[in-house]
Amino acid sequence: MARVKITETVLRDAHQSLIATRMKLEDMLPILEKLDDVGYNSLEAWGGATFDACLRFLNEDPWERLRKIRSSVKKTKLQMLLRGQNLLGYKHYADDVVEYFVRKAIANGMDIIRIFDALNDVRNLETAIKACKKEGGHAQGTVCYTISPVHTLQHFVNDAKTLEEMGADSICIKDMAGLLIPYEAYELVKAIKENIKIPLQIHTHYTSGVASMTYLKAIEAGIDVVDCAISPMAMGTSQPPTEPLVATLKGTPYDTGYDLGLLSEIADYFRPLKDSYVQSGLLDVKMMGVDVNALIYQVPGGMLSNLVSQLKQSNAMDKYEDVLKEVPRVREDFGYPPLVTPTSQIVGTQAVLNIVTGERYKMVPKESKAVVKGEYGKTPAPVPDAISKQILGEEKPITCRPADLIAPELDSIREQIKEFMEQDEDVLSYALLPQVAEKFFKYRKDMKSKKEGAPEENAGEANGEILAAITA
Amino acid sequence: MARVKITETVLRDAHQSLIATRMKLEDMLPILEKLDDVGYNSLEAWGGATFDACLRFLNEDPWERLRKIRSSVKKTKLQMLLRGQNLLGYKHYADDVVEYFVRKAIANGMDIIRIFDALNDVRNLETAIKACKKEGGHAQGTVCYTISPVHTLQHFVNDAKTLEEMGADSICIKDMAGLLIPYEAYELVKAIKENIKIPLQIHTHYTSGVASMTYLKAIEAGIDVVDCAISPMAMGTSQPPTEPLVATLKGTPYDTGYDLGLLSEIADYFRPLKDSYVQSGLLDVKMMGVDVNALIYQVPGGMLSNLVSQLKQSNAMDKYEDVLKEVPRVREDFGYPPLVTPTSQIVGTQAVLNIVTGERYKMVPKESKAVVKGEYGKTPAPVPDAISKQILGEEKPITCRPADLIAPELDSIREQIKEFMEQDEDVLSYALLPQVAEKFFKYRKDMKSKKEGAPEENAGEANGEILAAITA
Ligand SMILES: [Co+2]
Ligand SMILES: [Co+2]
Repeated sequence: MARVKITETVLRDAHQSLIATRMKLEDMLPILEKLDDVGYNSLEAWGGATFDACLRFLNEDPWERLRKIRSSVKKTKLQMLLRGQNLLGYKHYADDVVEYFVRKAIANGMDIIRIFDALNDVRNLETAIKACKKEGGHAQGTVCYTISPVHTLQHFVNDAKTLEEMGADSICIKDMAGLLIPYEAYELVKAIKENIKIPLQIHTHYTSGVASMTYLKAIEAGIDVVDCAISPMAMGTSQPPTEPLVATLKGTPYDTGYDLGLLSEIADYFRPLKDSYVQSGLLDVKMMGVDVNALIYQVPGGMLSNLVSQLKQSNAMDKYEDVLKEVPRVREDFGYPPLVTPTSQIVGTQAVLNIVTGERYKMVPKESKAVVKGEYGKTPAPVPDAISKQILGEEKPITCRPADLIAPELDSIREQIKEFMEQDEDVLSYALLPQVAEKFFKYRKDMKSKKEGAPEENAGEANGEILAAITA
Repeated sequence: MARVKITETVLRDAHQSLIATRMKLEDMLPILEKLDDVGYNSLEAWGGATFDACLRFLNEDPWERLRKIRSSVKKTKLQMLLRGQNLLGYKHYADDVVEYFVRKAIANGMDIIRIFDALNDVRNLETAIKACKKEGGHAQGTVCYTISPVHTLQHFVNDAKTLEEMGADSICIKDMAGLLIPYEAYELVKAIKENIKIPLQIHTHYTSGVASMTYLKAIEAGIDVVDCAISPMAMGTSQPPTEPLVATLKGTPYDTGYDLGLLSEIADYFRPLKDSYVQSGLLDVKMMGVDVNALIYQVPGGMLSNLVSQLKQSNAMDKYEDVLKEVPRVREDFGYPPLVTPTSQIVGTQAVLNIVTGERYKMVPKESKAVVKGEYGKTPAPVPDAISKQILGEEKPITCRPADLIAPELDSIREQIKEFMEQDEDVLSYALLPQVAEKFFKYRKDMKSKKEGAPEENAGEANGEILAAITA
């Protein structure tokens, strides 16, 4: 039993989950010094969907945001979320882009990089982990939590051990959908702690209403760090609230040692901000509710609502029960991928097609094919031969790491945007989000020549699908 | 370790806490059969502030509401909250009124009566407990949880044992303000369970954000029953949500055995109803937040906001810190009453007066005097002699049970309202809320003679102060 530490997510996942990543830097700056004084394990403040949202919706340079936060947060480690070989974009990038991105993130002030892959294919984490270590950063390897017959305690333990051997400085259990219930969390944390030497952290969402209890049992099982959000920006689709956990642990061997009075001042800062999000409609009160369907069907809540809307479009709501039964079968056929973006959409859509067409795999979208072919990486279990043949026909699956097939691309990208370059990092913004970045570069140039006027809001085009793709 | 049972509060405390007790019978009727099918320990469906709200705001006869609920809930026990010798009103009543009220509650379908007293003076519970037993009801004796130097584990254990000896069929730990944190709950439940043979139940509110964790530790310590609310009407100032706890305990030795699918259907019923409360402004989203100040100052959140508004009225907000320090001193002077209505207001106002006037007990409101004199009952610790002399002067304190000084009153009340009597129970409505009941009786008479038109809403006058007085 030892002191528990907290990573505060209010600057990243909390607002990503509650208000579609729309918190502006100017809303963060006034409270950074107080946040820095708490003594958190770290402040999650960058990565995930914030990179895209800065460029696309807020007309902010994400690199400038990082530097500004760093200049106010002098004592506390900064943390970010990185999608392995996908970085903060939507496809696999070449190793030279991954390495350069990690180098620049650390050079601009990042301390801890949480690296994950939607399939838990550790090969998709390796380049980022090695780059992070090389640059002197803290590389956190991630195990995405999911429920399936192959996702046994031993399976998760093996993944964690592999990441430790790969050089990870700590491990994170990442539960994107709030599926991890308290007594399961206890067993999982205990099993992993018994098999690794590096610290273990847990990340979950309040969606299903169990998250605070899950942390309490994880703590009793020996977790080192938990991810929380200050109460006004906590619960619902966000993280468990920070203050009640701090109060609960006070005076116990797990005591965080944080000052509740200071946390209360921080909450006082965010409370009117939250009210303004509710007023403007940015925060839908429904996001604050509890959805137990995730626990009933063991799939993310968002996936269920997607199924419903797809069935409604096909006028086939009477097939809902059949589709719910088809989901686990498709998942089995596809090698039990964790149900997280994009696999949750792929499995869900395939289940709907299998039922609505009346014949399994009569229609197969290209994304389904890509999963079966190995283009996202290795699935947790092998895809059964019969399914592979039915879907791929003569095509051979990929068995290597997907990025092994991508040639270095940094130089050619640099060439493409040289007219807009104002800083080294611009090449990375463009590599990840070419159109969005170019639009932002033009806006930045215009602003410079005008030297007047406030930035327009929402200059970029909203793209719900793409944004959904990075919600994690 | 044994199965845990749940009392569902959606029909009483959940809407009392979130929407000022405004849920109408017509909003309950469509879901009663499903609620009846869950297998709950009980449905809390009456008492508390509902009696007043029915008559004052909803133009409903509370007795008729009870009978209607009973006729749809055929299998599940109904439960109510009763303020001991105060019944559902605002003063001590004569024993004949208490006995008749309990008799009629049970005759109209009530099964379990949770009986409490704001000072934990067991003498104020005795008449109601005995009456409940005599009528064949289940009498639940209540220990109000609070934090003070005299409220040791042993103190609470003694109160629980006294209630058991008095004939209580079960004991409830009632935490009105969400002050009971998880590991304290574990110790408290364990201590009481070791010393009583009857079942133990716990009631708390989510206000400070710890409530689900508190239940989990209470369950591990052996609690028999917990009070929850179906998720759309849970959290914030209400109870912890039912479904996440049921999911958490599933497959463990504490398994409730309830059907999550059925609970999900019940949640589906209440979700649009909640949305309509938000739309109409009846439910303020701020009620759903977490307020950790209760845990910092160990006083109810509502008390702190009262202090602030009193100080603002006196233009003395600069004295806030001094007042916060004065509160525990006044509480000590008054014999450490639990901070629940009305004692929280009395202690708070006295602390403000002591600081603002610059002299302790220079100004003493009559309510402060009444506490010191013993007019509410016996305080947990004796009032120190010096304080008693300073406040009462020559007057002698009352040492008997306050109701011992009240002559039987039922016959004279019956005489007063005979022109309006349509049922035996009317005398009780009038005994508890004379003006409000008379207004309702007149309305009822008018409706009968008109035999047309729907009841007007909010025919009674809102009285925030009085309503606040029964929030528990
Ligand atoms: Co997340
Ligand atoms: Co209550």
